[in-house]
Amino acid sequence: MLTDFKEFSAFKVAALAGGVGGAKLARGLDQALPPGNLTIIVNTGDDFVHFGLQISPDLDSVCYALAGLADPVKGWGRAEETWNNYNALMELGAPTWFKLGDKDLALHLERTRLLQAGWSLSAVTGHFCERWGINSRVLPMTDAPFRTRVKTADGNLLDFQEYFVRERCAPAIAGFVFSHAEDIQPTPAVLAALEEADLVVLCPSNPWVSIDPILRLPGIRETLREKTVLAVSPIIQGKTVKGPAAKMFAELGITPSSLSVLAHYEDFLDGFVFDLLDGELFHNYEGKRIILLGTQTLMQNDEDKARLAAEVLRFGEQLIVRKAL
Amino acid sequence: MLTDFKEFSAFKVAALAGGVGGAKLARGLDQALPPGNLTIIVNTGDDFVHFGLQISPDLDSVCYALAGLADPVKGWGRAEETWNNYNALMELGAPTWFKLGDKDLALHLERTRLLQAGWSLSAVTGHFCERWGINSRVLPMTDAPFRTRVKTADGNLLDFQEYFVRERCAPAIAGFVFSHAEDIQPTPAVLAALEEADLVVLCPSNPWVSIDPILRLPGIRETLREKTVLAVSPIIQGKTVKGPAAKMFAELGITPSSLSVLAHYEDFLDGFVFDLLDGELFHNYEGKRIILLGTQTLMQNDEDKARLAAEVLRFGEQLIVRKAL
Repeated sequence: MLTDFKEFSAFKVAALAGGVGGAKLARGLDQALPPGNLTIIVNTGDDFVHFGLQISPDLDSVCYALAGLADPVKGWGRAEETWNNYNALMELGAPTWFKLGDKDLALHLERTRLLQAGWSLSAVTGHFCERWGINSRVLPMTDAPFRTRVKTADGNLLDFQEYFVRERCAPAIAGFVFSHAEDIQPTPAVLAALEEADLVVLCPSNPWVSIDPILRLPGIRETLREKTVLAVSPIIQGKTVKGPAAKMFAELGITPSSLSVLAHYEDFLDGFVFDLLDGELFHNYEGKRIILLGTQTLMQNDEDKARLAAEVLRFGEQLIVRKAL
Repeated sequence: MLTDFKEFSAFKVAALAGGVGGAKLARGLDQALPPGNLTIIVNTGDDFVHFGLQISPDLDSVCYALAGLADPVKGWGRAEETWNNYNALMELGAPTWFKLGDKDLALHLERTRLLQAGWSLSAVTGHFCERWGINSRVLPMTDAPFRTRVKTADGNLLDFQEYFVRERCAPAIAGFVFSHAEDIQPTPAVLAALEEADLVVLCPSNPWVSIDPILRLPGIRETLREKTVLAVSPIIQGKTVKGPAAKMFAELGITPSSLSVLAHYEDFLDGFVFDLLDGELFHNYEGKRIILLGTQTLMQNDEDKARLAAEVLRFGEQLIVRKAL
């Protein structure tokens, strides 16, 4: 089944991804496509500095997934991780709300060193991918600092990781602040990857804080309107597998559902993939322009990822053919 | 034997120390003296930034020694250390010439975090000592950046850790550069500790790169001339237990010997402790002002440290009494 795509060497795919859910589908797409045909454009709005180290949680989740190093149980960080550094930080009374494993720390140390030596985040990420033998290209959405902050219902403005990890997404949100997003350029490589792509896939990542930061960058949304684009819903039966996307929809006064995810991307979408468990929601769907695919979207293991990736790619081909008619 | 000093609660000691050898005697003095009577003033000329982290090798050696966390075999770093981070750095092709253990890394992470939050190095060091239940005061010689560099015989200028760790002290040296040392102030706490001290002990540390940086700071040498000061030779039979002190003496055209160490500090020294194995060297010693003590100075275990510390303290008392006559 997958070999179809391996042979279809001209088929270029660009995927937009955030953290865990996005990394899972990225892993599936990477396995399904020939080496070099997939570019994953990753949110860096979650990036932050901790203990003086530059941390890029979404880039790391995607790279670990593609390198086969991701922890399959926790859903974040590296497999076979150890916590001796973490325990020593506890002894010192240091803040430990963001858990850094001993092996994971190596990535942040080396990234920080290279950035301070003048490398771009794109170059650092490419270097790591090369070291790990990753065939797809992983690109940060921008090389410039971009910070997503969360406006809480009680009037606070939290850095994303403070909200997400330290506060465990507990505060009700009122919105998001992407400081100077309109002035921050996507890298030329990101724009080129989108231009060259036959198909653009929005991975099942949080629309508000994983995909929207990418869409906010100048030129991205305009480019997507010219391309064949499909999205995979991160919401199944009103819930997310992981993360606060459903909670965010509700707190913003929108029903958390795959239908709301579709509506969120409506202006540039050609196709939408939802879970069959949500089938009823789409019975009366009237947006004729957007083609729907209901399938099993939950990815619990590498087989699920490969199967969903193959379905997404087939669906993408149909969308391209249909658009050409 | 040690209880004598435990009872002598008014006896204030300031010790000047670098890394490993200094840390050993500091450990002995800390065990011998009542809590709060010892202040250790530590060289920070070895400090450097690695992977964006602020590393203070000598402060760490002294603190680990006093906390009972030092590795007794390696002579640096923490006991029961693990190397999962180090191995992950190797996988990434990162520079690994300066080995950072998983637990040791916690210290550098938290130090960096606190310094970036506006703490002084003195405050950070005090905080760590408190967390570890260390009774003596450990003070960095200065809170300002001070960098020792090594001039090599072939005309290069190396940062100290590059020379010491990366190049394993292989290049022949021509001298040392302490950039702007005359403009870098010792902390008020350092000057006060020296003023208050009944006895100042120069630990068996490298005279050139551990003790000299401290002596270079404005006011230190002048203060020492007013105090009762003794030094313990880091050289036994022309060799050092660890580190390049003997090699440095030779490359600077000075016979590496305990006698040369004495000469190095001659202008402010009241007493000098050398190893009995060097007894012959001092048979014809004619500097009447400086009192000599020959004893066993090699510290291979905690008992050695305690015994040498007790001898040093007794010798110091004699020097004080003699000076008062």
